[in-house]
Amino acid sequence: MLELQGIPVSPGVAIASALVLDAEGYRIPRCIVPASDVDDEFARLRAAVDLVSEQLEQSRLETTATAGRQTGDIFAAQLQMLHDPRLHSELEKRIGEERQSAAFAVSGVLHNYASALQKLENPFLADRAQDVLDIERQLLTELGAVTRQPLLDLNEPVIVLSRMLTPSETAGLNREFVKGFCTEVGGPGGHTAIVAKGLEIPAVVGIGEFLPVIAGADCVIVDGDRGRLIIDPTDEVLENYRQRAEYRRSLAQRLAQQSQLPATTTDGTRISLNANIEFPHETASCLQRGADGIGLYRTEFLYLSSDEEPSEEDHYEAYAEVIKQMNGRPVVIRTLDLGADKMGHGKRSQQENNPFLGLRSIRLSLRNLDLFRPQLRAVLRAAALGDVRVMFPLITTIAELRQARMLLNLVAEDLKEAGVPYRSDLPVGMMVEVPAAVIMLDHFACEVDFFSIGTNDLAQYTLAVDRSNESVADLYQSSDPAVLRLIQASIDIAAQTQTPISVCGEMSSNPARALLLLGMGVRNLSVPPSALPRVKKAIRNVSIEQCEAIAERVCKLESARDVDLYLLDRLTDLAPELVMQ
Amino acid sequence: MLELQGIPVSPGVAIASALVLDAEGYRIPRCIVPASDVDDEFARLRAAVDLVSEQLEQSRLETTATAGRQTGDIFAAQLQMLHDPRLHSELEKRIGEERQSAAFAVSGVLHNYASALQKLENPFLADRAQDVLDIERQLLTELGAVTRQPLLDLNEPVIVLSRMLTPSETAGLNREFVKGFCTEVGGPGGHTAIVAKGLEIPAVVGIGEFLPVIAGADCVIVDGDRGRLIIDPTDEVLENYRQRAEYRRSLAQRLAQQSQLPATTTDGTRISLNANIEFPHETASCLQRGADGIGLYRTEFLYLSSDEEPSEEDHYEAYAEVIKQMNGRPVVIRTLDLGADKMGHGKRSQQENNPFLGLRSIRLSLRNLDLFRPQLRAVLRAAALGDVRVMFPLITTIAELRQARMLLNLVAEDLKEAGVPYRSDLPVGMMVEVPAAVIMLDHFACEVDFFSIGTNDLAQYTLAVDRSNESVADLYQSSDPAVLRLIQASIDIAAQTQTPISVCGEMSSNPARALLLLGMGVRNLSVPPSALPRVKKAIRNVSIEQCEAIAERVCKLESARDVDLYLLDRLTDLAPELVMQ
Repeated sequence: MLELQGIPVSPGVAIASALVLDAEGYRIPRCIVPASDVDDEFARLRAAVDLVSEQLEQSRLETTATAGRQTGDIFAAQLQMLHDPRLHSELEKRIGEERQSAAFAVSGVLHNYASALQKLENPFLADRAQDVLDIERQLLTELGAVTRQPLLDLNEPVIVLSRMLTPSETAGLNREFVKGFCTEVGGPGGHTAIVAKGLEIPAVVGIGEFLPVIAGADCVIVDGDRGRLIIDPTDEVLENYRQRAEYRRSLAQRLAQQSQLPATTTDGTRISLNANIEFPHETASCLQRGADGIGLYRTEFLYLSSDEEPSEEDHYEAYAEVIKQMNGRPVVIRTLDLGADKMGHGKRSQQENNPFLGLRSIRLSLRNLDLFRPQLRAVLRAAALGDVRVMFPLITTIAELRQARMLLNLVAEDLKEAGVPYRSDLPVGMMVEVPAAVIMLDHFACEVDFFSIGTNDLAQYTLAVDRSNESVADLYQSSDPAVLRLIQASIDIAAQTQTPISVCGEMSSNPARALLLLGMGVRNLSVPPSALPRVKKAIRNVSIEQCEAIAERVCKLESARDVDLYLLDRLTDLAPELVMQ
Repeated sequence: MLELQGIPVSPGVAIASALVLDAEGYRIPRCIVPASDVDDEFARLRAAVDLVSEQLEQSRLETTATAGRQTGDIFAAQLQMLHDPRLHSELEKRIGEERQSAAFAVSGVLHNYASALQKLENPFLADRAQDVLDIERQLLTELGAVTRQPLLDLNEPVIVLSRMLTPSETAGLNREFVKGFCTEVGGPGGHTAIVAKGLEIPAVVGIGEFLPVIAGADCVIVDGDRGRLIIDPTDEVLENYRQRAEYRRSLAQRLAQQSQLPATTTDGTRISLNANIEFPHETASCLQRGADGIGLYRTEFLYLSSDEEPSEEDHYEAYAEVIKQMNGRPVVIRTLDLGADKMGHGKRSQQENNPFLGLRSIRLSLRNLDLFRPQLRAVLRAAALGDVRVMFPLITTIAELRQARMLLNLVAEDLKEAGVPYRSDLPVGMMVEVPAAVIMLDHFACEVDFFSIGTNDLAQYTLAVDRSNESVADLYQSSDPAVLRLIQASIDIAAQTQTPISVCGEMSSNPARALLLLGMGVRNLSVPPSALPRVKKAIRNVSIEQCEAIAERVCKLESARDVDLYLLDRLTDLAPELVMQ
């Protein structure tokens, strides 16, 4: 058994056999070979190198004859690479010491070279990358590797293990057979994570290099709750996970029966429980799980899932689809939150040393009006179809908020002049996720209709921690006392200024932390669709007084660890079913 | 005349002729040629390519004969690169359209390729980089470029313009002749910036690519106050800058006469005015300018200026030198603040997506005890020599602070057991520069002897802005109302808990902002040595009541712009000499 730790990006547990894909579209039949086969693999490699070498020499002679020596030299350069002593010493190390199969070693080494070259986005060096890929392709063909076809014609449940998945591969995953996936790279904000959450497939990303150790993995477990990948589990572990999976299934069934009951505490306080969505198709499951509305409709998917810049119509149709389905229930559309780890098209992106502190989100939108204007037009138009509100992300200064509002007004005037139907009194809100916004919230309250606290970014900036950076991950805690104080301050100012406030960050989707938020005064939560049943259950099990007692105790604690331990303890008392044993 | 904007990293104005260096150690005689010479440059390029081509062909034949075809193919690969059509189209564009000299074009294009490859830190690709550099070197030799010798044997005042300067180049700059410098890359925290400040040479970094436009620049102006590089100024601009430089000189002379007077306001309140230093040699100028002490002794220089890991003795000697010179005046040593933009040796560094939110500063020290322990031992030992205090940077959580204190105690016990003299009651302070620290400051007050506010990082995190990122630079303002509220909150809590507090961030070195800080309740400032005279002058010109009136007005303003305009207005009234016309 081998247990690997990564970043949990989509909850749940899956148990199935592994489908291992290499990075360049080849399915490698065997990654690791027994010690007794190492010599065979060396022989296979030598044979392949010799064959490819002959082919290249042939091409070189032919090309030199027909197109001159300079063109023929292209193959001379490839030949030089093929015989490069460093390449061979790397291959020998992988095969001899790490017992990789020849195909897996070739794929690993040459892919690294090529992708490093390609990342440089330099046409001259991209040519060199092409040379490397040519050699890789020829060697792999001789070594009997096959292309990535298998993802399309699956006929049994699998867990996909790969270096990464492209956006289209992830989006096209066959949910019937793909029960989970794990990738070597990626972070919580990457497209893979976002799509996995949307599809509700358990997923772990950012595990670091692990494919080389997957040898004949008949059975793997993805634990999307804790961010674990377990390869060839012991019987005991397997049984344990099977029980957990079974418990989840039966709990889900029981909770499903309560899905249409209101999110009301035992003392009769009605909590507005809404859903965060990424894709229009998620609306159905929100309704099925009894969401009161869409508290956060992210709109980046339009950029992440297509190669073309979405048009105003693309925006409008995506919004209209959700608004119509929600049939009068509130829908909060957040404007584009691109940048940092969520990049759209190349032309918008730019190399930044600290993208989380850079040109992202509303900052990017305000500097790219050809990107922002179509979205605002579409939101205004779609707002005529239901109870729609718009929300600006990452607002840092009053000036930024005013600029965004002014642009919205200008766009509305254009629509009015053109006689296009739109909603003129669209409520405008802002995300509270930069410390500066919390600190100036009394001023902001005069200029918006509602607030929504984004606990993820707020914790990142308050604690100066990139949550996707493993080496400081221990410092990133949304239950850190400093973060809680800022949340409490926001709630208090919202109450004083009678500005509605909700919490849509990940914090609200954890039932124990949700109870804390109720105790701090929040009456509106927005959570991923998959979390709706458990958060509703927690709400229906407690009184506001009990929650207030929790909040009172928590504000005396000095560390996130103390807070989480205390919250778990309270949840175990108040809603024991929700605490997995 | 051409005016370029960069990041001001060392104040002052310098006017001199330009010395242009390319990135790879070659001094390029001419960067840009007149339109009439373009054909000549093409001819020079062709001739050089032909010559190098012949040499490579010769090497290939010889090597093939003596060492076999595979070795000879190395030259075939170089030949292929030399004739690569993309390379030639780039060169032709630079020479034909941008009128670069052949040597400058070759240096620019091939350097880009090579440095991109080298950055990958991959041995196979590093070989390719070597191939590119070989070709560059051969072509440049044929084109008559010369190596970077000139920096060493200067005999007239120059302003150095280059892509970047290496740490050793910067540290070795001849202050007699190098009057200023400007680089294409770099940020406020880079070694170049730090060394420039230490040497008090006006400098501007991060200008972006500008070397290609420097054609025969006989006269350039570096404006280190505003971050400007002016090439071939008009007579009017030149005269204006000459007057400014003259005004500065005479102001400096007048202020120098007051250097030994105390920093006391007109109502008799004594302000403690201290200096931030980086290098021991700066101590002399601190004393000469009448600093009350060293408020911030940065210790990263030990890492940035040497290739070897500093020993405990290296630390000790550097500290002892400063402490002895300060002769009983207080010296606050800040422990290592490496990471983010200040990297030490390769082995400590690691690729991070958001280094400012990553493993830096105290976080790095606490995870590298072999790095931290020798420093703490040296501080404890040196503390026996004078009034020394130690300060931990970037403290985020109480747990971190306790861990650092615990380590300090353990190290002290080791010293005690070994019978080494040290100071047992060393006062321990912390930097307040993460929003979480401000928010939890009441808790921190129970655990430290003093606070020092680092306004630079505090503003970065509060506003979620990387100040070295040009595209969001407008959002980075330490006079932003949100930042000011956090500073005020820190001062208030320090007063309530009777914990001494100072401000050592850049904010305190601006005389207008320093007055605001006095009005907010600060009585201890620490500024770069070069800022001591002006800040002292400002202090001696005002009463605390006047400062309090400023603070009262400022806390009603809504933007950094409003704050700065108002502050400038007040400074013009209260200390008109300090306001440059």
